[in-house]
Amino acid sequence: MGSFADLTTAEAAAALDAADPLATLRERFAGGDESLIYLDGNSLGRLPRETARRLQAVVEHEWGSRLIRGWEEGWLTLPVRVGDRLGEVALGAGAGQTVVADSTTVCFYKLAAAAIDARPGRTEIIADYDDFPTDRYVLEGLAAAHGLTIRWLRNDSGLGPEPEEVAELASERTALIALSHVSYRSAFVLDLPAITAIAHDAGALALWDLSHSAGAVPIGLDAAGVDLAVGCTYKYLNGGPGAPAFLYVASEHQPTLRQPVWGWLGRDDPFAMAPGFSPAGGISAMLSGTPPVLALSAVQASLELFAQAGLDAVRAKGIALGEYAIALADAWLSPHAVRVASPRDSARRGSHVALAHADAQVLCRELIAAGVIVDFRAPDIVRAGLSPLSTSFSDVRTGLVTLRDLLALR
Amino acid sequence: MGSFADLTTAEAAAALDAADPLATLRERFAGGDESLIYLDGNSLGRLPRETARRLQAVVEHEWGSRLIRGWEEGWLTLPVRVGDRLGEVALGAGAGQTVVADSTTVCFYKLAAAAIDARPGRTEIIADYDDFPTDRYVLEGLAAAHGLTIRWLRNDSGLGPEPEEVAELASERTALIALSHVSYRSAFVLDLPAITAIAHDAGALALWDLSHSAGAVPIGLDAAGVDLAVGCTYKYLNGGPGAPAFLYVASEHQPTLRQPVWGWLGRDDPFAMAPGFSPAGGISAMLSGTPPVLALSAVQASLELFAQAGLDAVRAKGIALGEYAIALADAWLSPHAVRVASPRDSARRGSHVALAHADAQVLCRELIAAGVIVDFRAPDIVRAGLSPLSTSFSDVRTGLVTLRDLLALR
Repeated sequence: MGSFADLTTAEAAAALDAADPLATLRERFAGGDESLIYLDGNSLGRLPRETARRLQAVVEHEWGSRLIRGWEEGWLTLPVRVGDRLGEVALGAGAGQTVVADSTTVCFYKLAAAAIDARPGRTEIIADYDDFPTDRYVLEGLAAAHGLTIRWLRNDSGLGPEPEEVAELASERTALIALSHVSYRSAFVLDLPAITAIAHDAGALALWDLSHSAGAVPIGLDAAGVDLAVGCTYKYLNGGPGAPAFLYVASEHQPTLRQPVWGWLGRDDPFAMAPGFSPAGGISAMLSGTPPVLALSAVQASLELFAQAGLDAVRAKGIALGEYAIALADAWLSPHAVRVASPRDSARRGSHVALAHADAQVLCRELIAAGVIVDFRAPDIVRAGLSPLSTSFSDVRTGLVTLRDLLALR
Repeated sequence: MGSFADLTTAEAAAALDAADPLATLRERFAGGDESLIYLDGNSLGRLPRETARRLQAVVEHEWGSRLIRGWEEGWLTLPVRVGDRLGEVALGAGAGQTVVADSTTVCFYKLAAAAIDARPGRTEIIADYDDFPTDRYVLEGLAAAHGLTIRWLRNDSGLGPEPEEVAELASERTALIALSHVSYRSAFVLDLPAITAIAHDAGALALWDLSHSAGAVPIGLDAAGVDLAVGCTYKYLNGGPGAPAFLYVASEHQPTLRQPVWGWLGRDDPFAMAPGFSPAGGISAMLSGTPPVLALSAVQASLELFAQAGLDAVRAKGIALGEYAIALADAWLSPHAVRVASPRDSARRGSHVALAHADAQVLCRELIAAGVIVDFRAPDIVRAGLSPLSTSFSDVRTGLVTLRDLLALR
């Protein structure tokens, strides 16, 4: 970053793009509207060109021609195969611990319920107001059903909770600590290993929502001894709108943990259709219904882009994009009362940058009308997603030039 | 059927096809392997050509170009819009009572749990061993979690339970009667209105699985006063492998029934992302996670074929195909110890025909190898699905000729 006389020039952006080892991957995504500046890949990732081809092939050749035979020709094992590949490419998870199926909400429900069931007599769940809303609602529903109390973290910094705040609440009453790895608003990266260890010290289980880190920030699930995790595949992982979610259950818990939705795909030998549920061995016991074949094929295709790039390179570019966006915000936007509301320490920031302004909601509307797609998060955040595979430094510059000019016109 | 001197001739099949008012709809499906005789549309429906086009358009133009803006441009309301259209076209359900989302297993779980919750103090569920396996497993899981007993129907006929058998078990202890409208093995059509009335007389709720009737047999959900229903869209409804399921909650129950998976799409004003879950009004409260946009678009496309055909015509052709298959089985297969294991009364038979033979599993394998796709259901059933929009009388004849010849070779 420091090697340019003036980082804010278009030449500097072009030079950063020229030096970007992942720059060519951008061509692997559908261009869409060429004039569009898309800074929302943290909400819905772009369409990989290969995904469009793969979907068409699955529709025409697998569904259209092979028909029911597809189940024996690979469809049935897709949740596990795509899960294993995802674990390898993005989660730091060894094989046999991850499946792709259902929505993030349903996955989160299954694992939170399983965790509560595994800690009978414990009466508390620890969570944070900055957890993604659906997670909070699921926990509220489970707490109501099981007579549990949710202990909400104070989150003093406003960015996200630190381990010591979690430790203050953790006790022999804690059944479950359920948190987002990266905050959907601030992009704050929680200390996943330390908080997992706090859960274990208290005899509780840790459930992580990786929706805003998977595909952007390396996650060493196995290395950190994480018990349970879920996440979304339609954000940084480019799986498509409403793509199925993933869930992870560490091998050590698989023999004992029971999830509540006992369906045929979670049963031993599902096509026997026999009386009486007896759970499948391994991670398959976390499945319930018939796998969404088309959507799984889309996720499968996009994962290969991450395998090719390597997640360390993805993270390095995400950090560089973030530092660049923050430098431009400091130079251009702070005079207009815009505050960087994400951590400035790149190690504690995910791959989006939150820019706070009192009039953020209107500014977001104006940016979108000007062809710069960002999103608004209440009460005052313009959220700019910097998707390492498909966002260029020039995109970031154009987006922030547009915001600067809109602010100057006020 | 009676107007041919010999119904078993190829000429008779051709004449039946020529007289079929729905014959031209067959061209609206991808041909696939032209020599294939596909008698498994009750398990996975064929690909409508329009669906392939629609999916490509949604992928390229909506996801690829509109990106995140798609949510405001129609994606968010897809579960309800597709549900309403499905209700109108196939379920006899007025608007605002049906959504398409999740898997059948998850939908069944949500509604069964909601029903149990709505009948506190009641200790029994009535179900049948011939309910589709995933339904039985879900009920077992809920019964275990809530300390309830499942009363399994005797099913004396071996085809499926009659109302009097249900009435024998129904009492003030019954919370829920959960049954399949059409048996996945025998194709027996249960008396949905009478059994629903028995549930109500006992103060219980009725939950119907319509997976094997939706798109084949008209279902008057509103007219019969059904409380709750779920079903699959990838069988007769041609939604694609692992397509999302539907669920129906009668308007009268919507203000009071609570489902257990409290997700953001089931909340009032989901994008406010506000603290505290407060359920959305109406059927949307049954939603949980982000809608699977691509898969919903596929379901949406195929429904228009049913709208065009009209479900009464679909049913009439289904009955004619079934009567024809049974006539051929009587003529050709009964000498080879094949027994028709579906009801002979067309009014009590769905749109598949079960043919029982001691060696059914091997026969199914041989049929598939010979290019006639059927499926095996334990212990002794060759199941031939007669999908009214895409199956011809000639298909049925060729399929049963093949089976006859395989049997003659033994």
